[in-house]
Amino acid sequence: MTEPLEFDIVRPPDERARLDALARHEELTKPPGSLGRLEELGVWLAACQGQCPPNPLRRPRIVVFAGDHGVAARGVSAYPSEVTAQMVANFVSGGAAINVIAAGVGAGVRVVDMAVDADTPDDVAKFKVRRSSGPINSADALTDDEVHAALAAGRSIVDEEVDSGADLLVAGDMGIGNTTAAAVLIAALTGTEPVAVVGRGTGIDDTTWMRKTAAIRDALRRAKPVTADPVALLRTVAGADIAAMAGFLAQAAVRRTPVVLDGVICGAAALVAEELAPGARAWWVAGHRSTEPAHSLVLEQLDLEPLLDLKMRLGEGTGAAAAIPLVSMAARVLADMATFAEAGISGPDADL
Amino acid sequence: MTEPLEFDIVRPPDERARLDALARHEELTKPPGSLGRLEELGVWLAACQGQCPPNPLRRPRIVVFAGDHGVAARGVSAYPSEVTAQMVANFVSGGAAINVIAAGVGAGVRVVDMAVDADTPDDVAKFKVRRSSGPINSADALTDDEVHAALAAGRSIVDEEVDSGADLLVAGDMGIGNTTAAAVLIAALTGTEPVAVVGRGTGIDDTTWMRKTAAIRDALRRAKPVTADPVALLRTVAGADIAAMAGFLAQAAVRRTPVVLDGVICGAAALVAEELAPGARAWWVAGHRSTEPAHSLVLEQLDLEPLLDLKMRLGEGTGAAAAIPLVSMAARVLADMATFAEAGISGPDADL
Repeated sequence: MTEPLEFDIVRPPDERARLDALARHEELTKPPGSLGRLEELGVWLAACQGQCPPNPLRRPRIVVFAGDHGVAARGVSAYPSEVTAQMVANFVSGGAAINVIAAGVGAGVRVVDMAVDADTPDDVAKFKVRRSSGPINSADALTDDEVHAALAAGRSIVDEEVDSGADLLVAGDMGIGNTTAAAVLIAALTGTEPVAVVGRGTGIDDTTWMRKTAAIRDALRRAKPVTADPVALLRTVAGADIAAMAGFLAQAAVRRTPVVLDGVICGAAALVAEELAPGARAWWVAGHRSTEPAHSLVLEQLDLEPLLDLKMRLGEGTGAAAAIPLVSMAARVLADMATFAEAGISGPDADL
Repeated sequence: MTEPLEFDIVRPPDERARLDALARHEELTKPPGSLGRLEELGVWLAACQGQCPPNPLRRPRIVVFAGDHGVAARGVSAYPSEVTAQMVANFVSGGAAINVIAAGVGAGVRVVDMAVDADTPDDVAKFKVRRSSGPINSADALTDDEVHAALAAGRSIVDEEVDSGADLLVAGDMGIGNTTAAAVLIAALTGTEPVAVVGRGTGIDDTTWMRKTAAIRDALRRAKPVTADPVALLRTVAGADIAAMAGFLAQAAVRRTPVVLDGVICGAAALVAEELAPGARAWWVAGHRSTEPAHSLVLEQLDLEPLLDLKMRLGEGTGAAAAIPLVSMAARVLADMATFAEAGISGPDADL
C-alpha cells in the first residue's frame, strides 16, 4: 500500500452561516421563499463557505476522470473502447461538450487519465493507476493497491484544486463501459435488482442491453459479499476512474468545498464516498437528474433533489456544469439584493 | 383609438435551420440525443435565428411591466399597493432580484410603468396608460382605448429592443394584485374553475385566499361573455401591464425574436398573445414552472415543457432569467463542439 486509506472526519457545513442566510432571505426585497430552491441553494452555499453573504463563485473546477473498463469487451456499449482515449484528446483540445459548457459558465476543466487503455499526455496521466480494469462480470476490477492508489489520487487532486483556489468542484467521467460498473455499484449499495439499474448508456440496442444486463447480473453476484466494505467493493466491481471519483468526493467534503454532483457515474462514486467519509453528502448538491434509471436510485438514497431535469445522459460532468449558473445566481442573490429597509419598501400586511 | 390593433402575421421559425441543427447534433462528439433538452433548445434557437450554428446570445433583454390593480383594494394580496411603486424604484436602483439575476446571466433590465398608481421617473413612465385599473370583480379594468394603447406600447417596446439588437426577450411583471388578474385570464382561456387557479401569490393567508377566490369568481363571471375576443377580455379583466405584455409577446414573434417565458403573469399574457397573433408560441420557450397553480394550466394549454422547476414564484422575469444560461449553453454547444470527423473519433458500433 502506497498511501494510508482513511479520510479525515467530515464536519458539517457551518450552522451559524446557514442561519444567517436564512434570516437574510427574510429581509431581501421579495416575498419570503419566493425564489424557491435558489434560496435553499444560497443558504447551502453560505453554510459551506461559513459566511453570509457567500462570496460569488470565483473558481469552479471540473475534473473529468477517464478510464476504460474490461467489461466493455463483453459488448455492453454502443461505442468501442478506443473512444475513451479519443475523447481524452478531445477534452485536451477543447472540443467536447464539457469544454464548451464549462467555458460558458466560467468553469475550468481538467482531465485525468486514471485507467485509459492507451497512452495519454504526461500531464493527463500523472495519476494513472493502470490500463483498463478487470472484466467485472468474472474478475476483480482492481487490486487493493490499485484501489488505494486511485482513492489517493482523488484525494490529491482535491488538495491541489482547493489549494489553487477552487471554490466549487465537479467530478465528471469518461469511459466506455463505465455505466455498467456504475450500475453494479448502485445496485449493490441500494439493494436493487439488475434490470432496474440497466440503462441505455451511450444509446445501446436491445441485444446490447441484454448483454449489459447479463454482465451486471454476474458482477452484482460477485459484489454482494463485499457490499459492506467500500474498498473491497471498489476493488471488485468499480475501476480506477470511479474509485478516484469516490476519493475526490470524500476529500472535497473533508476540505469543506461544495460539490455539484453529475449523473450516474458520479452518483455511484458518491454512494461509495458517503461510506468512506460519512456526512460527505452535506457538501453536495445534485446538479441534475440523468435519464439513466440507476441515477434516480442514487438521488433517493442520498436524499438529494436535482436542480435540473433536462433528460441529459452524457456524463463528462455536463449535467453538473449546466447547474453551475444556478449556484452562482444563488450566491449573488444573497450578496447583492437590497433589503426591505435599504430600499424603503413596505413589508407584508402593512395596511391590511 | 390611437393605434391600429392588428399584429402582422406570425411566420414560423426557419425549417431549414432547424433541420441543419438536428443534423449537426448527430455529428457532434457525443452520443446522439445525450444532451437531452439542451439539444432541443439549440435546435429551436437555430430555427429562430434562421441559421445553424446559431450565434451566441449577445443582448438578451428583460422588460419588467409594472402596474397596479384596482382589485388589490379587495384585499387579495399580502402586500399593500404602494409596494408596486417602491419596487419600481428598486428596479431602477438595481436592488431587486431580477437586477441581480440578470446581471449574473448577462442580460439587461428595463422597467416600464404601464399603470403604477404613483408617479415614476419620466423614462420609466414613457408608455404609461393610466394609474391602476378598474376593480375587475365589479368593473372593467380598462377602456378600449387603454387596451389599444397598452398593446401598442408592448409592440413599440419590442420594436425598440429588437432594433437595438436584442436577440432574446423576457417579459417580467411587477404589480400588487396582478396574480388575481392573471388567474382570471387563465381560468377564462382554459375553461377552469376559480378554485383551481387561485394561488398564494406573494404569500397570502387563508382569509386573504378566500377574498382572492371570491374576487376571481366575480371577475370570471364578467369575463366569460368576452372570452372569444382577446381585446375585450383584456379590457374586462386584465390591466395595462398585462395587456402590454401580451402585445410584447405577440410582437416578439412578429419580429422573429425568441422569448423565454416567465411565470403566471407572463403566462396569462402569453395565452392572450397567442390569440392576438396565432403561431406566436413557436417563438417561445418556457423558462420555468411557477408554484402558482394557474401557471401549470398555461404550460399545458401552450404545450410547453418548462426548462426549470425550482419552486419559484417571484415574477419580475426571474424564472425566465434563471433559464437564460441554458439557452446560451445550447447555442454554444452547436457552435463550438467538435464533430466526430474533426476530432477523429470512432462512431457508434464501429467494432461491435
